[in-house]
This record gives sequence, structure tokens and C-alpha cells, in this order.
Amino acid sequence: MSDSTTDPLVIFTPSGKRGHVAAGTRVLDAARQLGVDLDSVCGGRGICSKCQVTPAYGEFPKHGIHVAEGALSEWNRVEERYDRVRGLREGRRLGCQAEVLGDVVIDVPPESQVHRQVVRKEADKRTVHMDPATRLFYIEVEEPDLATPTGDFQRVKEALHEQFGIDAVTAPLSILGRLQKVLRKGEWKVTLALHKGHRDHEWQVLDLWPGLREENLWGLAIDLGSTTIAAHLVNLRDGTVEASAGIMNPQIRFGEDLMSRVSYSMMNPGGDQEMTRAVRQALNQLITNLGDQSGIDPVEIVEAVIVCNPVMHHLLLGIDPFELGQAPFAPATSESISVPMRELGITTANPEGQIFILPIIAGHVGADSAAVALAEEPGKSDDLVLIVDVGTNAELLLGDREQVLACSSPTGPALEGAQISSGQRAAPGAIERVEIDPVTREPRFKVIGSDRWSDEPGFSMDITHSGITGICGSGIIEAVAEMRIAGIVDRHGLIGSAEQTGTQRCVPDGRTHSYLLHDDSANGGPRILVTQADIRAIQLAKSALYAGAELLMEEKGVDHVDRVVLAGAFGAHISPKHAMILGMFPDVPLDKVRSAGNAAGTGARIALCSVAARAEIEHEVRVINKVETAIAPHFQEFFVGANGIPHLTAPFENLATIVTLPEVAFNASPHSHPRRRRKREPAEG
Amino acid sequence: MSDSTTDPLVIFTPSGKRGHVAAGTRVLDAARQLGVDLDSVCGGRGICSKCQVTPAYGEFPKHGIHVAEGALSEWNRVEERYDRVRGLREGRRLGCQAEVLGDVVIDVPPESQVHRQVVRKEADKRTVHMDPATRLFYIEVEEPDLATPTGDFQRVKEALHEQFGIDAVTAPLSILGRLQKVLRKGEWKVTLALHKGHRDHEWQVLDLWPGLREENLWGLAIDLGSTTIAAHLVNLRDGTVEASAGIMNPQIRFGEDLMSRVSYSMMNPGGDQEMTRAVRQALNQLITNLGDQSGIDPVEIVEAVIVCNPVMHHLLLGIDPFELGQAPFAPATSESISVPMRELGITTANPEGQIFILPIIAGHVGADSAAVALAEEPGKSDDLVLIVDVGTNAELLLGDREQVLACSSPTGPALEGAQISSGQRAAPGAIERVEIDPVTREPRFKVIGSDRWSDEPGFSMDITHSGITGICGSGIIEAVAEMRIAGIVDRHGLIGSAEQTGTQRCVPDGRTHSYLLHDDSANGGPRILVTQADIRAIQLAKSALYAGAELLMEEKGVDHVDRVVLAGAFGAHISPKHAMILGMFPDVPLDKVRSAGNAAGTGARIALCSVAARAEIEHEVRVINKVETAIAPHFQEFFVGANGIPHLTAPFENLATIVTLPEVAFNASPHSHPRRRRKREPAEG
Repeated sequence: MSDSTTDPLVIFTPSGKRGHVAAGTRVLDAARQLGVDLDSVCGGRGICSKCQVTPAYGEFPKHGIHVAEGALSEWNRVEERYDRVRGLREGRRLGCQAEVLGDVVIDVPPESQVHRQVVRKEADKRTVHMDPATRLFYIEVEEPDLATPTGDFQRVKEALHEQFGIDAVTAPLSILGRLQKVLRKGEWKVTLALHKGHRDHEWQVLDLWPGLREENLWGLAIDLGSTTIAAHLVNLRDGTVEASAGIMNPQIRFGEDLMSRVSYSMMNPGGDQEMTRAVRQALNQLITNLGDQSGIDPVEIVEAVIVCNPVMHHLLLGIDPFELGQAPFAPATSESISVPMRELGITTANPEGQIFILPIIAGHVGADSAAVALAEEPGKSDDLVLIVDVGTNAELLLGDREQVLACSSPTGPALEGAQISSGQRAAPGAIERVEIDPVTREPRFKVIGSDRWSDEPGFSMDITHSGITGICGSGIIEAVAEMRIAGIVDRHGLIGSAEQTGTQRCVPDGRTHSYLLHDDSANGGPRILVTQADIRAIQLAKSALYAGAELLMEEKGVDHVDRVVLAGAFGAHISPKHAMILGMFPDVPLDKVRSAGNAAGTGARIALCSVAARAEIEHEVRVINKVETAIAPHFQEFFVGANGIPHLTAPFENLATIVTLPEVAFNASPHSHPRRRRKREPAEG
Repeated sequence: MSDSTTDPLVIFTPSGKRGHVAAGTRVLDAARQLGVDLDSVCGGRGICSKCQVTPAYGEFPKHGIHVAEGALSEWNRVEERYDRVRGLREGRRLGCQAEVLGDVVIDVPPESQVHRQVVRKEADKRTVHMDPATRLFYIEVEEPDLATPTGDFQRVKEALHEQFGIDAVTAPLSILGRLQKVLRKGEWKVTLALHKGHRDHEWQVLDLWPGLREENLWGLAIDLGSTTIAAHLVNLRDGTVEASAGIMNPQIRFGEDLMSRVSYSMMNPGGDQEMTRAVRQALNQLITNLGDQSGIDPVEIVEAVIVCNPVMHHLLLGIDPFELGQAPFAPATSESISVPMRELGITTANPEGQIFILPIIAGHVGADSAAVALAEEPGKSDDLVLIVDVGTNAELLLGDREQVLACSSPTGPALEGAQISSGQRAAPGAIERVEIDPVTREPRFKVIGSDRWSDEPGFSMDITHSGITGICGSGIIEAVAEMRIAGIVDRHGLIGSAEQTGTQRCVPDGRTHSYLLHDDSANGGPRILVTQADIRAIQLAKSALYAGAELLMEEKGVDHVDRVVLAGAFGAHISPKHAMILGMFPDVPLDKVRSAGNAAGTGARIALCSVAARAEIEHEVRVINKVETAIAPHFQEFFVGANGIPHLTAPFENLATIVTLPEVAFNASPHSHPRRRRKREPAEG
């Protein structure tokens, strides 16, 4: 860099970086000297065209300079040829060709930045700086000759050092085995996909192509759930999602929930290996599906970031999850893991592609929660945010700039519609939304597969194929909340009789009552009831969730939270109003409850696009304060206290139907006292 | 470390390191403070007993101190128990128990040193400092609890950091998968085999055992030759060889010599992979054999160092050796390689064990030559040494402290007995030594399998089983040299007729003559002849060898060498006298010719025992001056000039039979001029 003020002044936008460079300096070199982010795959040879810039001419009072016509050198032969062959957009120059001759303002368009910012389309407009671990580098390698008998790979390393300043490069054997043919085919010009380790700062060759490769590289952001595995196929250049696909986790045949899979492995020698094979096969299938769907050759997928709970984490890695099934729930390893695809048996993508698995927060709080933390950044929040990832185990994060706390809470599968009498997964035919008229106590509902309410014309047509088959997680939450609003259920969670509630839909069911939501038995279809046992299951689940939040609040020494974020695929479908009526989380104004969709998947995508984010979440996970519900002295107390429905407090004043609701209490049968019944419930389940 | 001179003075022998330590400091800690090499696997817990020391009492005028009785603390409970249970040798103390109370002299016996010196038994008494890459570490790991939910592996790393100051530890998935059970079985005490990367300074867990493991770890030093694969099973604690075994290289079925294997791979798609599989299978078999032979479970073999020529190197790694078969003979990679056993399909040893392959010097000068350089250290030689590794390709190293040069020379297989009319490998039945009476021109010989000469009583009995089947490499060299001494062959390499030589053993053979070494045809056995073509093949081979040496000497600007080292399994069997008569290498006094045995194997063993040696040879290989015979302007000239037999010069004056030998010249037939015949030889081969 030149210090002389007689040298031309160069100002780069949008970064605002400025400095004097010697006249004749190439724009690309000026950018490097001034630390400006200007891309180049070919190292400035005028072939990759990634370094396009837009010079601005005229008066720039803000910067205090005047840019004359001749501030940059004339178009040269390389630019002319490039324009002729491939077209250079109006006003654009190649940064590796144009030379700075006078004071100039140079704009670096977003597509010419390596670390371009990608604005996420979610409400809070989080920006992600593209900084993927894997990038392409085009180099020209010295030919071997008899006088300097070094290996081809050593000359590749020299070229990387000289042309990009990159050192500490390694290559797996499969790459060394392909290297010689590729170098000769490309006449000693080669493009390498290099993967940068974020901890060891080593570079690894993942793939290579003769000559200049201009196509994109691809990565996978995978949310490996107990029930479903979802993946985005992401362009590693700009972070855009090219395709998304999901597949059932085939481990379900070994057990619906995590603990039953751990049990399976304990009861069946080699059971963990069976489950490991199953999940790896599913990942291979998912990758094939993404390839078919997008038309992209899966071998171009050179990276994957996987987020998952600790049990999935261990089973994916081939580690028996035994210890995760019993206190103190010690994982075998909790730090992030980088491993080649081939070592996990992922053969459909690039076998040398690198898999990054986010760190585990605790034995019950997994890499998926770490991903949620990465996506939602509670540690950067000015106000106090509670993030609830609802699943068979709910993971909760509570925090602000000062401190972040995490715990998991054993909600059981009821909130996902499992272990509910008419429960089913969220699939066509499932009741997902419920309204009950507080006067007539008649219900109407929506079913997955139709946009209409059940009492609207055309509804029957919509569901011809699926029928009405059951009730899913969001449906049962709304049903219970609406039953409470309509006075069908009392504050203890008891369903009233037809007499007490004034509706014939309350039908006797043993010693208790059920509410008949839908009856198609006349046509041989199902009767969909909400039973007393269903209410109890939901009460247990929501109590666990609520108690977890209270525990974190106690630990942090606060009595309220400022906002609530519902995460998880399921969280996206929960009605905040109904969840709050049920008492699933502490009261906040309804407009302070937000669904973050699949935040774990978003976190995976962020980690895929940014090496810095990986380092960030590794640090964050270390400083998160883990609270263990199993040993917290007050958890049981909170749990029991949270059993009733609901806590009607201030934020609900605008919900007229609720506050005007007459408080009814049904006569409990001698055996139906909530506290006592709860203890017997497992046997009845 | 304490600076106060009122603190006790501790002097360690044999290192001579001394310093003051605070009274009450444990001897082990004092050793660490003063940088004294005192072993400890258990980190000073009094269980491994590796830190035994011998305090000395009394007057030490040399050191200027008096050691009183109470200089060390009394035996404590741990030492008493250890002595009771396992016996502590008289005068010994446990360094981790005994405390320094007064001035003391403490001897560290060799077996208590980590980096103990191992004196090689060869002539030059080279010492090797034990510094193996893989060592055992016993640690006590913190138990997990609900309040600190880190992974088991993270707590292992903390223990290594706290108890041994070791950081940057990684573990492969298979180790993570076994970790939890082993930790619990050992009640949170575990012994780890840690492998230290000599370049990246990372430690990798190769294996682990519950509690304290006291057994040794094992490594392999493997010389992977084109014809045979030889391996030593080495104790990684003291470098001793527990067992040695050899196996034929099964690649021989794809081609006897290297170039025919390269051709096989060129002509047969997938041929290189076949050869890769074959050599890996052979290594697995060899390891099994070593295990059977030694009674050591091969899974305890956690390391291997492999040396080999570049073609073997590529085929072992699964790289097509195509480029090594044509100029400029570029290897895919020339640097050293570290790779887990499993990645090379070595499944009989510990699959996570680390294989280290020495660097390649050039496309024709392999890791085997690097190993020879490591064993013989030409770069540390005060006088100028020529090291000749004889094989199908001969590798030559010429050097001293100033500079080391290397080349390979295409000798062809004749010196190994191949492409010789009665040639065979060195195996029972092969003639390996020859003497010809210079007066009667009658031969006598030795055969592998007998210690007697053929004219001694009992010889026939010795060889009853094998018979006399052919002539091996050392045998043909001696035969040709003796024929020259006896005047059967002239200086041009022509065999005389019976008339010219005065012996009926010279029999006509087409236009030339052969010498009948042995005739068993009367009993249906073989006639073993040395033919004119045999002489020519030996002449070609020795000329190439000699020309290579001359080339290196020219490059170095010298006209003589001070000493010659013959390396290679074959080199060990060559008679220096006969080799010099033949003119295989420049003349030096006979007592300056030494056989180094399998120097490549020795180099492999040194690299196995010393991480520092690995770094040393990597550096050495980079600075070795590689000379390429194929483009050296004078090589052809040297080659032609070296064709005659012999150069009888000063050093031979003491060999009376030679210098008094009448110089005879036989009439060459018109077609048998050496220069012209040589050119036609390939077609005749």
C-alpha cells in the first residue's frame, strides 16, 4: 500500500474502505491491499469474471473527490474478449484487468463479494454473511520436469501458496489418486474445492476439476429429527435454497420416541448399529431425492451441516446411545464434529464432502437446540426471550445479552398428537384447527388438505380422498383450549357431563366424560373424541413445558419474559393464543409470541453458509448455562403447580370470550382429583 | 522452580541437569522442572512404576555436594505396597513418591527414561533416541454429573490437559463409540494410546483400555520391496525387535519388475487396483504371521512405518503408477504420508493404528532410499560416502556434511540373478559364492542351505533336499569376477574358448562360449553355465551402477569417494572384493567397503522409534540434490566407459592373484563387439 497522497485515492463502496494505491495498481490488488472483499476464483487471470466492479465517475462531495474519465485504464484485450464471448454488463469492469490511474470510487456489487450478506426473509431480518467453508480456487500448476522431481500435489500446494497465499493444504488418498489425470487433462490448470477447517485452519481438497470450473458448489442443511429428516440443498455461493425435501426417519420402526429407541438398543444386541444403518440409508435416499428434484448431480454436494438431538447424534455417528437413556445422561462427545461423508457411509453425495455436526448443549439438549440458538441468537437479544422448541422433549432457551440458559423438559409425545386417543401425525385427514362456539358448544375444524372450515361449502369435496382420520398436535391443543374457553373443561382439566355443559357432545366414557368432536360412524367412519385421558396427557405435557420455563426464570431471577419464540416444525403450527390459554408458556402479550418455523433447520443453514457462525455457536454452547430439570429442586413443584388450565391474566383481556367466561367447576368423582389421578395415569395410558 | 540457594540442590544423572527445588518437591516434579527425561504413564499416582530412580548418597566432589541420609523422604505407604506386591529393586525409589528434602544426586536408569538411547549393534554404533509417536497415558477422568453435562470425551481431554499438559486431542469415531463403556468399566480410570502428529502437533487417540495398562505397544517397520515384503515387529517402548517375518510380494504375478507392473496397469483397466488389493492383502497376512510367531495380538500393533520405492508407494496408496512409467516420472505426491490402517485396508492390526510412509526423494528414488539416508546419514558423514542400494533399480546416495546427492540407475534385474541363464532368487539350492582356481580354472562354490564349499566333505548331504538349482545374484557376481581373475574372461567381457583358456569347462555356445560351473546332467540334474549373454547382462548392470556413481561424483566435483556402503538385503550378500573387481562402484580400499544390511528396513525402524527422525528425514529429503540419469549429459558416456572388466588400480595391489594375472585378450567374433552387441541385447533378452 502506498502512503503518498500524490498516489490515486481509491474508495470502495459499499464498505467505505479507502486508501491511496500506486498508479497502475489493478483494482483487484487495490481491494486486497485495502482489505476489501472482492471475489476471485482464478486469482486475477481474467477468466473467472468473479471480480466485476462498477466504477463511478463524477463529483462525490460526500467523499470529497472528483472522479475523472481516465481514472481507470482503458478496456483491455481481456475485457473486450470477455464482453464479446460472455457479455459484460454496462458499466462493469473486470477488477483484475482495470488499473487505477486516478482518484476513483469503485462499487463492489453483491455478487462480486465473497462474504456477501444474505438477508433472511423472516420477520427480524437477520443477515447472514456468506463465508462458506468450501470454496473454489483456480490455479495454474507448474509442470513437472526431470530436474525438479517433486510430486504433483506438492506443486499444487506451491501454486496455492503463491497464487492465493493458502498454506497447510491436505488431500485425502482418493484425491491424490485422481490428481495426476486431472492435472494433465486440464493442461496444468485446475480448479480445486478447498474446505477450510474452522478450528485447525487447515485446508482440505474435497474435489478437483480440469481447467476452470464455474458451476456452483452445493451444501446440505439437514435437520435430523426423530420422526422426520428434512434437508435444504443450498447454493454455497449465495446461500439460496435450490431444493428442499423430507423423508421419514426409518428408525421409527425401532421406537416412536427417543427413549424407546434407546431401550431398543439396550434390549437388542447390535440394535444401535441397525438404527445407525437405517438413518444413514435414509440420508443417502434423501440426497438422491434432492438430486432428482433439482437436477443437480449429488456428487457436487461437498458439504453438509447436520443438527439433531443427542440420541440421533449418537446413532448417526455409530455410538451406542445407552448412556443418554439414564442419569446423568452423559454424551460420548459434546463438541462439534467434522467428518468426511464416506466415514458416515454417505455415498450418494461427494464421498470426500465434509459433514459438520453442531455441538451438543447437554445430554438432553442437542445440536438442534444449538442450531436454534444460532438462528435466534438469544445471547444477542436486548429483551428477555424464551425460545421453546416443542417436541417429544421440549428444549427451552431463555436469555438476553447477559446470559443464556437452557433446559429440556420431558413433555412426552402428546403435544405431537401421539398417545392421544384419536391422535395422529400431521398428515392429510388430520384435524389441525378447532373452534368451539362458546354458546352452542358446537365445534368446527380444519383438516390438513383443505383450506376451508368444516362448516364451509366445499369442505367435504376437499377431503374426499383423505377423509377425516384423527387429530394432530396443533389440533388437540386447540381443541383442549377451546373446550376450556367454552366451559366444557374446568380449571382442573375435568370434562363436564352433558348436563353440566349443556351439550350432548359430552358423552359418558367410563367414570369420566369425553367430548365428541366429529362422528362419522353412521358412514362407517371414525368417531373422533377428546377424552379425559387426552386432557390429562396434554396437561402433563404442557405442565412440563411450563415448569421448564419457570425453572429457567427462577435460575435467571426473573418473573416474566418479554417475548416467546415457538420453534420447531410443530411450533410453526401451534396457535399462540390457544397455547397460552392452555398455559404452555408464561404469559406475554400475544403480539410478542412469534413462530420461528424450523429454527433448527435455519441454524443448520447459517452454519453451512458461515464458518464464523460455526465458531460462534461453539463458543455460545460453552457459555450457555445448562439447567437440569431432573435435579432442580423446584421442578416438581413447578410441574404440579402448572397443571391447571388456564392462568387467565392481563394479556387476555382483549379476548372477550375468555374473560367473560363463567368459571364453572365440575363435580369431580371421588377418584378423579387431578393430583391423585395424575399419579395413576401411567398405568391407564 | 526455586531460585533460592537455601533450597535443596538436585543433580540428575546421567543428564547432569541440576537446580534448586523447594524442599518437599517430589522427585518426578523436580525432574519436570529441570527438564529431565523421567517417564511416567500414570502421571505421578504411584501405580505405573515407570518413574523409578536411584538416589546416591555420600560425598560427590565432582558435583561439589554431600548427600546425607535424609536427602529424600522416608519410604511411604505407596512405595511399601509397591515393594510388597511387585518388588522394588534395591536402592530404587518411586520418583512420584520420594520428596527432595536436602541436596541429592539422583540417577535415572535407562528404563525410566522416555527418550532412552538405543545403541544399534551395527559397526558404527549409531544411537537412536527413543521418541515414538505413540505412547500410553493413564488418566483419571472426572465423572459426569447432571450439573456439568459435558461429553465424556471432553472430560478425557480435560484430564489430559490437567494431568499431562496435553492439548489438541482428537479421536476417531470408532474410539468415541467405545469410550463410554471403557470409562465406566475402568471406573473413570483409563489408559490411552496417544499418537503425536510430528507435523501438526495434534494428538490422536488410537486405542484405550479400562484402568492402568502396563503391557507394551507394538509397531511395524515394513520394507515393502518389489519382490519381498519384510517386517519387524518392534516394541515401541525400547525399540527392540520382537519378531521378524517376510512374505513374497504377490504383485509379482503382475510383473517381475516395477516397469512391467506399471505396464500391466496401463494395459489392463483396473490393473492398478488389483495390485493395490494384492499388496494390502499381503500386508494383512504378514501381520497375522507376525502375531502368530510372537504370540502378540496384532490389535496391539498401533503403528507402522513403511518404506518402499515410488511404484510400490503409489500402488499401496491406491494411486495409479502410470506417470512413474514415463518421463518426467512425476509422483502424485512426494511428501511423507500419515494415514490410519483402516484407510489402507489393513484390518489385521489395530484399525486406528497410524501408518507413516516416508517421503519420496524423486520419481525413481523412493521412500526406501529416504530410509537408507535416515539409517546411514550421509549428510552427517565427515568423509565422502557412496551408498549403493542394489536392486532392479539401484539407488545411489553420495554425500558428506556439505551436500548429499541422489540418483537412481537402471541396472535391470541381472544383479539379482534374474535374466541370467541359470539365474534364480536367493533360495535354498542357489549357488551364492564361487571360487575359481586361477591355475586349474576349476570352480568350487557354496549353495544356500549349506555352510560348506562344494569340494568339502558333507556338502552333498547338506543339499540333499534342495539339490543345486541355479545361481543367485551374489553367485553370478562372484562367478563373473572369478572368471575374470582366472583369465577365463577378458577385459572386454569375452569368454575364451577351451583352447584359449586351457579348460574344458569353456564350452562352445553358438558363436560364443560359456563356462560350465556345474554339471549334474548325468544324474538328470541341471547344467549350470555362465553364458556370454550372462556376462553381458552383468556388464550392463554394473556399468549402469558405476555410471550412476560417476555421475554423482561429477556433480559433486570429486574424483574419488572415501568409503562405500552396500545397502539392501542383496547388498548384504555381495562380496565387496568381487563387486570391486567387476567394477560395480569406484575403487576404494577394501576395508572401506561395508555392508549395511537392510538399511531401508533399519531406517524404517528408526522412523518408527523416533518422531524427531521423521522430521529429520523430511527435511533431509528436501535438501538432497536429485540428479536424473535420464537427462544427465554424461551418463551415457560414463555408462559406455564402465563396460570393461575391471579397473585394476592401487587398492588391489594386495590381491596378488589379480595383479600378477597375465592380461589375456580373446579374439572377438565380428558380431561380438561389446558396444554393438549391447544395442541388440533387448531383442535377445
